[in-house]
Amino acid sequence: MIEVDLSNVWGQITLPKLLAMEKEVFDAHMALSEGTEENGDYLGWMKLPVREATEEMQRICKAAQKIRTDSEVCVVVGIGGSCVGSRAAIELLQGPNRNIGKGKGDPQIFFAGNSLSTRHWNELMGLLEGKDFSVIVISKSGTTTECAIAFRGLRWMLERKYGTDEANARIYAVTDPCQGALRQMAEAARWETFMIPRNVGGRFSVLTAVGLLPMAVAGIDILEVMNGAMDAKESYDLRSYENPVWLYAAVRNLLYRSGKGIEIFESFEPGFRVMGSWWQQLFAQSEGKNGKGIFPATAELTADLHAIGQLVQQGERNLFETMVRFAPPEAQHVIGSDWNDLDGLNYLEGKTLDFVEEQAFQGALTAHVDGQVPVITMDCGALNARTVGELFYFLELACSISAYILGVNPFDQPGVKFYKQNMFALLGKPGYENSGR
Amino acid sequence: MIEVDLSNVWGQITLPKLLAMEKEVFDAHMALSEGTEENGDYLGWMKLPVREATEEMQRICKAAQKIRTDSEVCVVVGIGGSCVGSRAAIELLQGPNRNIGKGKGDPQIFFAGNSLSTRHWNELMGLLEGKDFSVIVISKSGTTTECAIAFRGLRWMLERKYGTDEANARIYAVTDPCQGALRQMAEAARWETFMIPRNVGGRFSVLTAVGLLPMAVAGIDILEVMNGAMDAKESYDLRSYENPVWLYAAVRNLLYRSGKGIEIFESFEPGFRVMGSWWQQLFAQSEGKNGKGIFPATAELTADLHAIGQLVQQGERNLFETMVRFAPPEAQHVIGSDWNDLDGLNYLEGKTLDFVEEQAFQGALTAHVDGQVPVITMDCGALNARTVGELFYFLELACSISAYILGVNPFDQPGVKFYKQNMFALLGKPGYENSGR
Repeated sequence: MIEVDLSNVWGQITLPKLLAMEKEVFDAHMALSEGTEENGDYLGWMKLPVREATEEMQRICKAAQKIRTDSEVCVVVGIGGSCVGSRAAIELLQGPNRNIGKGKGDPQIFFAGNSLSTRHWNELMGLLEGKDFSVIVISKSGTTTECAIAFRGLRWMLERKYGTDEANARIYAVTDPCQGALRQMAEAARWETFMIPRNVGGRFSVLTAVGLLPMAVAGIDILEVMNGAMDAKESYDLRSYENPVWLYAAVRNLLYRSGKGIEIFESFEPGFRVMGSWWQQLFAQSEGKNGKGIFPATAELTADLHAIGQLVQQGERNLFETMVRFAPPEAQHVIGSDWNDLDGLNYLEGKTLDFVEEQAFQGALTAHVDGQVPVITMDCGALNARTVGELFYFLELACSISAYILGVNPFDQPGVKFYKQNMFALLGKPGYENSGR
Repeated sequence: MIEVDLSNVWGQITLPKLLAMEKEVFDAHMALSEGTEENGDYLGWMKLPVREATEEMQRICKAAQKIRTDSEVCVVVGIGGSCVGSRAAIELLQGPNRNIGKGKGDPQIFFAGNSLSTRHWNELMGLLEGKDFSVIVISKSGTTTECAIAFRGLRWMLERKYGTDEANARIYAVTDPCQGALRQMAEAARWETFMIPRNVGGRFSVLTAVGLLPMAVAGIDILEVMNGAMDAKESYDLRSYENPVWLYAAVRNLLYRSGKGIEIFESFEPGFRVMGSWWQQLFAQSEGKNGKGIFPATAELTADLHAIGQLVQQGERNLFETMVRFAPPEAQHVIGSDWNDLDGLNYLEGKTLDFVEEQAFQGALTAHVDGQVPVITMDCGALNARTVGELFYFLELACSISAYILGVNPFDQPGVKFYKQNMFALLGKPGYENSGR
């Protein structure tokens, strides 16, 4: 169970204030578990975790196995919620350099359709040169501009390389169960398809095929991910402050009310970066509305102690930190002795790197608290697929409860349409000629 | 010349306010060009750009050539200012996946000593397995904990693999010209050394061997980088608002005074991410002090329009954006036609991906301005080594001027010591037993 430690937030907020908020947290949780008229169609994510592989999950594993066998590269086409969850899990579990040296049997995984950069596209073309590859396309509609452009290009590359039939056997579509352009294309061409349930929003979709298929291609045990999520679903249903989800959701709102408008979500693992982006998207899109919302920022320690540490310690006092920690890995690095000790490190002889990290953590914690920066710590235990599943569900639940406490609807994103309308008008998209400004 | 466009910041600030600030900007620039008692020892970065290769740069190129010839991997050991600049240039010019498929002749480059994560260390060990490698160690003192631990480990790996003499020929030290642990070690073992001038602070050191040696190993033309920086040094010495550096420095301070406490520095290039981190470190460490300073955040478009776009459009109105743009690359991707047009993209037939990006840029710009988010745009021209050099110098100058306008010393970082003192006390470092809290 993920432990949320509040020892280092007091001083900014008080226990009576936290207790006074209990009813708000209870009501927020209730609005989720009971459902309301407004959110009823968006609560599908709460029912996704399972203990045993569903038929869909079995098909995901089979498709992933085929891709692992016949492809040196798997290109995942998706943007926002359709790519960042799987990418987060893969980088956290397999490291930022997992693609190096990979190939058939354990393919490289690249993400496309998440940018309009020509340089990014050209780089992908270089990476695919001469390689056997498959494409997973993830989109509810199939008409998201970035994805549709990338997918059109990749589809034709597959057809030129393999001919129509084999190309169609190398395309996997994750999309709406019944309607939309991508569903229609998939049925016409008989691509294997997986489902994004109607009642699951993009940023809450990581535990559907959206997240699970790319994870499975990377070799991650998706049943373990789902079991971790199920652990979370069961554990974090508790209606009291013994529930760490409640603590996190409540305290971040209290800190926000006390003037802390920026949350830095951080970890000591370089592989955590994209998980930070997943968290950032989840909270920014769910809470940033009606002129409200904490600004979600991310950092990587200890590197960022040398990069934004000065500002954290002594800049504007408008921020707090959430430190996510994992248990150390089994293989430890022990610091050895050196006869002349010019670097002055012999005092650490026989100590592990992890021990040093722990002291850096404690040292930064105390320093930042002294600097009036409250720090929430989140201890996640061993870093494995199960923990990743647990963390996804934990944060989805915490985000939804937190948004209700904030007084906003976590499941809409009314502001996203404005730039799209302008863009479509400028692009001359049929039907949008007069919609821009 | 980098163009700073302010068309989309008006409404939040006014021209009279900008003009009223001119004297402050002038004084700030003067404090740099004349030097003061306080900053005199830290202005070395202003004199780094050159038109012709110095003797040091020639040695850098020669060392880089040796590494490129005899190594499949080059490990750069450094943290903060000692790694993020070269990494930024390499990713921006060569893409986030530049290491894939690289080896002898054009080595992979990994960064170490910028983390205390055991998983990160173990990943590096896997990446070095069976590979010929060299190590560049970058540290003024040689005793920074993260770097010293990583370097000790790597040095012994080299010695075990190659024997002492060959190991010493594969180590390159970038350090203080005369003193410090690393200088001492380098002279004892006869490693080739390069200099971090005394009067150049870490976050301003990218145009010394700190940044140039790893760039040269990556195959970047460092004379072009320096020429770009020299272009900047000459162009941006102008003492008026015709100087785009002045515009950027002034406007961000005006926005800050009007309640915009968060700046999102962003680009449409996925390869720009680490350049964003370099900018973040430069501004956070230089400005985040005395309870003041804009919070520097970064984003990648268009991906982040789907991730934090909602918050930017409708969340707290406490932010502004700085969009960095580059001219399109020569190789364009043209969107083709599709007979059944199920994805509805045929209206873009014959258009380039870059054209679509341009409309997304304009669409987002208008939408965000409508949402009361001011947007500064920074047009940098062609994306090449020269531009990168220009951008480094541009931002260093802008940051220094901006910090003086803010009323803080850009060249110190008095808050960074606190976590270190705590950590050293916890680690039992000799001399620090009683320094922690």
